[in-house]
Amino acid sequence: MVQSVQRAVRVLRELAAGGPRLGVTELAERVGVAKPTVHALLRTLEGEGLVVQDSETGRYQLGPGLLLLGNAYLETQELRARSLSWADTLATRADEAVWVTVLTGDHVFVVHHAFRPEGVVQILEVGASIPWNTCALGKATVAFLPPEQRKALLDGDLPALTGASVTDPAALSRQLDEVGRTGHALENQESALGDAGIAAPVFDRTGVAGAIGIIGPVERVLDDSARQDHIVAVREVARQISRELGAGRGSARVPRP
Amino acid sequence: MVQSVQRAVRVLRELAAGGPRLGVTELAERVGVAKPTVHALLRTLEGEGLVVQDSETGRYQLGPGLLLLGNAYLETQELRARSLSWADTLATRADEAVWVTVLTGDHVFVVHHAFRPEGVVQILEVGASIPWNTCALGKATVAFLPPEQRKALLDGDLPALTGASVTDPAALSRQLDEVGRTGHALENQESALGDAGIAAPVFDRTGVAGAIGIIGPVERVLDDSARQDHIVAVREVARQISRELGAGRGSARVPRP
Repeated sequence: MVQSVQRAVRVLRELAAGGPRLGVTELAERVGVAKPTVHALLRTLEGEGLVVQDSETGRYQLGPGLLLLGNAYLETQELRARSLSWADTLATRADEAVWVTVLTGDHVFVVHHAFRPEGVVQILEVGASIPWNTCALGKATVAFLPPEQRKALLDGDLPALTGASVTDPAALSRQLDEVGRTGHALENQESALGDAGIAAPVFDRTGVAGAIGIIGPVERVLDDSARQDHIVAVREVARQISRELGAGRGSARVPRP
Repeated sequence: MVQSVQRAVRVLRELAAGGPRLGVTELAERVGVAKPTVHALLRTLEGEGLVVQDSETGRYQLGPGLLLLGNAYLETQELRARSLSWADTLATRADEAVWVTVLTGDHVFVVHHAFRPEGVVQILEVGASIPWNTCALGKATVAFLPPEQRKALLDGDLPALTGASVTDPAALSRQLDEVGRTGHALENQESALGDAGIAAPVFDRTGVAGAIGIIGPVERVLDDSARQDHIVAVREVARQISRELGAGRGSARVPRP
C-alpha cells in the first residue's frame, strides 16, 4: 500500500463528509497527520483539480476533477451501459422510476436512474448510496453473493433508516434465502417512509454484477393487483441484461421464474 | 508536490480515458513508471474503492468510490446548491433545458442540469465538460475573469467542435469584450450542430463563480422573437443567484442590464 495515496484519499473523504469547507489545521487533525504533510497533499490534489482552495478564506473543498472521474466511472461501467435502454423499457412498463445499482462494501450505489414516464418533479439519484440491508436492490444483490461474502455482510454493520428497516442478521438471512428461491427482493418503507421497491439481480460471466429495480410510493408499487406484474417485469428485464452481460443461459446463478 | 499521489491520479485518468479495461503492463507504459510501482498504486486505489479489478481478466477499471466523491463534490458546490430552484424557474420560463457550469482549467463542467419541462427523451449532462471557447457558458465565465487569467486562456488550447467554433484568439477576445459589455454570451452551433445557447455569469463574493444558461435547438433558442426574452430571463436568474452567493449589489463585476 502507498501511504501517501491512502492519506490523499482520506483527505478527499474528509472534505466529502465535511459539509463546510475545511482548513489545513482541521484536516490535519481529522486525518491524523502533521500539517505540512496535509499541506503537501492538498497542493498536489489542487494541482490535479481534485480540490479547490477558496481564495478568500484559504479553506479547501472538493474540486470538479472528481466529477469528471465519477462520470468516467459511470461511462466505463458495463452494467450501466447495458442497462440504459432496458431501464427505460422497465420504467415505461411499470410506470415507475427505475434504479440500477452496484454493491460496494456494504452499500449499493445508484449508477443509473430512469425517470418515471409521467412523473412530476423528480430528483435524480445517480450517485446515491444506500445500506444494502435497507433496500430491495441490496438484498437482491447480496442473496446471490458467494456464501463467505454474504456472511461477512450479515456479520457487519446493519443500520436502520426507518422503523421498518430489518437489522437482525437472522431475519435478514431468512429474507436472503427467500430472495434466492424467488429471484426477486421486496422492500416496504425500509429505506424511506412511503417508498417501496422491487428488485432482481443482474449477472455477468463471473457472478452477480448488481441489481435493477423499481422504486415508488408503497401504495402503487406493492398494490395487490399491480405487484405481481411488477415482479414479472423486473425479473424479465434483469434476465435480459444478464444475457447481454454474458451470464450463462443455464447458469445455476440465474434463477428461473 | 507528492509524486505518488500525482501518479495515482494519472492512473485514474488513464483508466478514465481507457475505454476498455487496462492491465498493469499497459498502465505502467501509459503512466511511464515501473510495473511494481503501478501495481502498488492500483492495490492502494483498489483498497479505497477507486479502482476495481476484474476477477476474470485481472484488468482494472474505475471503481464506484469515484462516483461517491464526484457526488460529494456536487453536494458541496455552493453555486450548484443555490442554483437548483433558479434553474428550474428558468427552464420553465424559457421552456428549454438549463445548465449550470463551473470553469476548471480550460473546460466548463456541468454541475446542474434542469430538464426542459415538456421535453421528450433527454440526456442528463451533469459531469459533461466542454471547451470554454465553444459554448456560451464558457464565454460568459471567461469574460469576467481577471485579465491575466483571460489572457492565459486565450493563449492556450482553443479546439473546434464544429465548423462554427471560434478558435481565433483575436476574434474570441472581441466576443469576450462584447460579453463584458452586455452581460450575456451567445453560442450558435459552436459546440454541437443544431444547438444554441444563451448564458450569463454568476458571481460570488470573490468574482465570477460560474455561469447559467439555456441550451436548445438553434431555431427555438435564437428565434428572432424569443431571443430577447431568453436573454432577459437568463440574466435575471444569474443576478438572483449572484445575490444569494453574496456578490455585492453594486459590484462593478455584476453588469446591469
